[in-house]
Amino acid sequence: MKIVKVSDQVSLKRSIETGTFEQQSIVKNIIADVRTHGDAALRTYTEKFDRVNLSSFSVPEKEIEEAYGQMKDSFVAIVREAADNIRSFHEKQLRPSWMTTEENGTILGQKITPLDSVGVYVPGGTAAYPSSVLMNVIPAKVAGVKRIVMVSPPNVHGKLPAAVLVAAREAGVEEIYKVGGAQAIAAIAYGTESIAAVDKITGPGNIFVALAKREVFGDVDIDMIAGPSEIAILADDTARADEVAADLLSQAEHDPRACSVLVTPSLELAEAVSLEVEQQLALLPRKEIATRSIADYGAIYVTVDLDEAIDIVNQLAPEHLEVITENGLELLGKIRHAGAIFIGRYSSEPVGDYFAGPNHVLPTNGTARFSSPLNIDDFQKKSSVIIYSKKALTDNGAKIAEFARMEGLEAHARAVEIRLNNDK
Amino acid sequence: MKIVKVSDQVSLKRSIETGTFEQQSIVKNIIADVRTHGDAALRTYTEKFDRVNLSSFSVPEKEIEEAYGQMKDSFVAIVREAADNIRSFHEKQLRPSWMTTEENGTILGQKITPLDSVGVYVPGGTAAYPSSVLMNVIPAKVAGVKRIVMVSPPNVHGKLPAAVLVAAREAGVEEIYKVGGAQAIAAIAYGTESIAAVDKITGPGNIFVALAKREVFGDVDIDMIAGPSEIAILADDTARADEVAADLLSQAEHDPRACSVLVTPSLELAEAVSLEVEQQLALLPRKEIATRSIADYGAIYVTVDLDEAIDIVNQLAPEHLEVITENGLELLGKIRHAGAIFIGRYSSEPVGDYFAGPNHVLPTNGTARFSSPLNIDDFQKKSSVIIYSKKALTDNGAKIAEFARMEGLEAHARAVEIRLNNDK
Repeated sequence: MKIVKVSDQVSLKRSIETGTFEQQSIVKNIIADVRTHGDAALRTYTEKFDRVNLSSFSVPEKEIEEAYGQMKDSFVAIVREAADNIRSFHEKQLRPSWMTTEENGTILGQKITPLDSVGVYVPGGTAAYPSSVLMNVIPAKVAGVKRIVMVSPPNVHGKLPAAVLVAAREAGVEEIYKVGGAQAIAAIAYGTESIAAVDKITGPGNIFVALAKREVFGDVDIDMIAGPSEIAILADDTARADEVAADLLSQAEHDPRACSVLVTPSLELAEAVSLEVEQQLALLPRKEIATRSIADYGAIYVTVDLDEAIDIVNQLAPEHLEVITENGLELLGKIRHAGAIFIGRYSSEPVGDYFAGPNHVLPTNGTARFSSPLNIDDFQKKSSVIIYSKKALTDNGAKIAEFARMEGLEAHARAVEIRLNNDK
Repeated sequence: MKIVKVSDQVSLKRSIETGTFEQQSIVKNIIADVRTHGDAALRTYTEKFDRVNLSSFSVPEKEIEEAYGQMKDSFVAIVREAADNIRSFHEKQLRPSWMTTEENGTILGQKITPLDSVGVYVPGGTAAYPSSVLMNVIPAKVAGVKRIVMVSPPNVHGKLPAAVLVAAREAGVEEIYKVGGAQAIAAIAYGTESIAAVDKITGPGNIFVALAKREVFGDVDIDMIAGPSEIAILADDTARADEVAADLLSQAEHDPRACSVLVTPSLELAEAVSLEVEQQLALLPRKEIATRSIADYGAIYVTVDLDEAIDIVNQLAPEHLEVITENGLELLGKIRHAGAIFIGRYSSEPVGDYFAGPNHVLPTNGTARFSSPLNIDDFQKKSSVIIYSKKALTDNGAKIAEFARMEGLEAHARAVEIRLNNDK
């Protein structure tokens, strides 16, 4: 793994996949087709892309029961405990509607309301990601969203992975449809005969799913378009090289474009981690992916001191940040930009991926400068509440009218004045 | 104004202005040019579009002092009082970072951090909108954003409107640049020699500004792309027709594509409001704009009863909602979708535009189903904090590793296990 001297500007940014013009056209056509032909279009695309002919998209209760039968009890118990942890962490984020009152009778406030409905996309393919189901569904459920829909592409037998179905049931999903790709996004954005539209779509997917989410954005809300995974580890010579290397590789195995970075003032640690990465890499099942990721996007930055290392971390604004230093907690106040911050050697990043409770859907590609982990606020919206009394309007009406006239908006001024005049 | 029977589906949605292909190309070229040539490009475009040759874009202190000299003291006092109200309402939204502790040593939490920097766009043209400056800047300031930049196109004399400069100073802006259009968005998104880049851009603008914001989104954050203004008034026969009509017109005067709707179970009120609208319209300075808006997008929906009227309102998800009924406050719990809710006859919509305190930047075009007024959360981000103790990892490590292996991510499992083994 390459050890580099820090340059003036470091960045985790990789170009965002915006798709080819052809891919964009395909997605636009699929969406238009689903809007026009509904279920018939879904059936056609499912046959074409997933190679299965479905009479109904809805997952019946029987298939969920079968899924439980296929999973080890111990695994179901782990899913349940993880779900409890995630639920508990997100419940602590709930805020009440609030109001403030003034003696003149004015009442102002914010009414907090859950979204009516949310659709969660779960990718298909060879691997099943039940953790992704938990992380997307549970916050919506805790936020009070009444209708949560899950969509995911079926295999050639017309089934979804058992682990995904179990996670969906444990998270509290009651509507699951076997449909994937851009056609699934179109279906839940605009509705078909058998699938009602939702207000927001979350969850990861391939380039076609990402393009479709961009396309329907505005008509419905979407979560972020996530980039490849990232980790930055801020460590001093109290850290163990083998543990640091293992954590770097846990991101590198996700994707050839994943990015794993160590930032340290210790040249000794840097050299030891570099060696450890090579050794551990050779033993990984996904070593091809991880090797490309480390070669193309891995780096060890050696800094003059810890303060410079923290500067680097803030410039990177990483999705995941581990702090493995003496008195790591003392550094928390200096860290301005990171999606999730893991402090201390026992807080290995996978702890947060699966189990601890905070969300694993995190801002990537430097967007932790201005974005947050998926959270309760993503599934609730606020409405301002304004109640003016007669006295409040009498006291302030003339000022409001003067402000409106200053902006050339006479009808605004008159709307206030007609009330003052009517009361005379 | 047309009185219509309610159909099954009502909607305020108007097509979103996405710009022509030519406009999109112009904007892309301007952005590329500013990224490459910096201030020189800004100077060229400012000469071309604003017809003024500027040696420096920064507004000097002297021009701000001159602006105060040009404004009536009474107006400055109103701006100051409005700013105080806006500040006070937004301060109430502040949340602390929080943590939760467990007996096994686990600490989980959310660290709330203000964005480093925000840029506010203020449109130019014939009218000056100081209220827009207050509404965009003050929440950022209250949220703790250290650097707030304002950009606005200069007039042919190279000046900004006095009211805008006064509002900017009262709101606490310390950097103001005379640059507008797509070139201004490019400058604050990517930086030039004289203007440093920001992390988020808010504020309204023309189609070129809107397209530029879409284009830079992802590299920086943006607020919503606002559509034309909307009001829905839910009223029964306790409402005065002249007041209802005046409020409908206060939105209609904004824009020919603004949308003003009355929803009422009272045919009597419907007929009286329809007449009043015609009469008041004739006397408005901006009657041409308001007439087109009322003709094209105005409607009075007469419903069977109040419950049906509330259903209609929830379907519309209006930007502004006035509730002028007996016991209006009792209906608040039934209103699920609205940007700002004004209750009672003294809570005329302009009260919220200028003075009461809640933000006037609100979700339009039905997006109140899933979006919120501009608020403190828009200028802060959260980072998850995860601290696992030795005991926490010992108790849960095997479960985390099993979950990771279930998803085929062996390096994740090993990152946890290496710690358990090292401690043996």
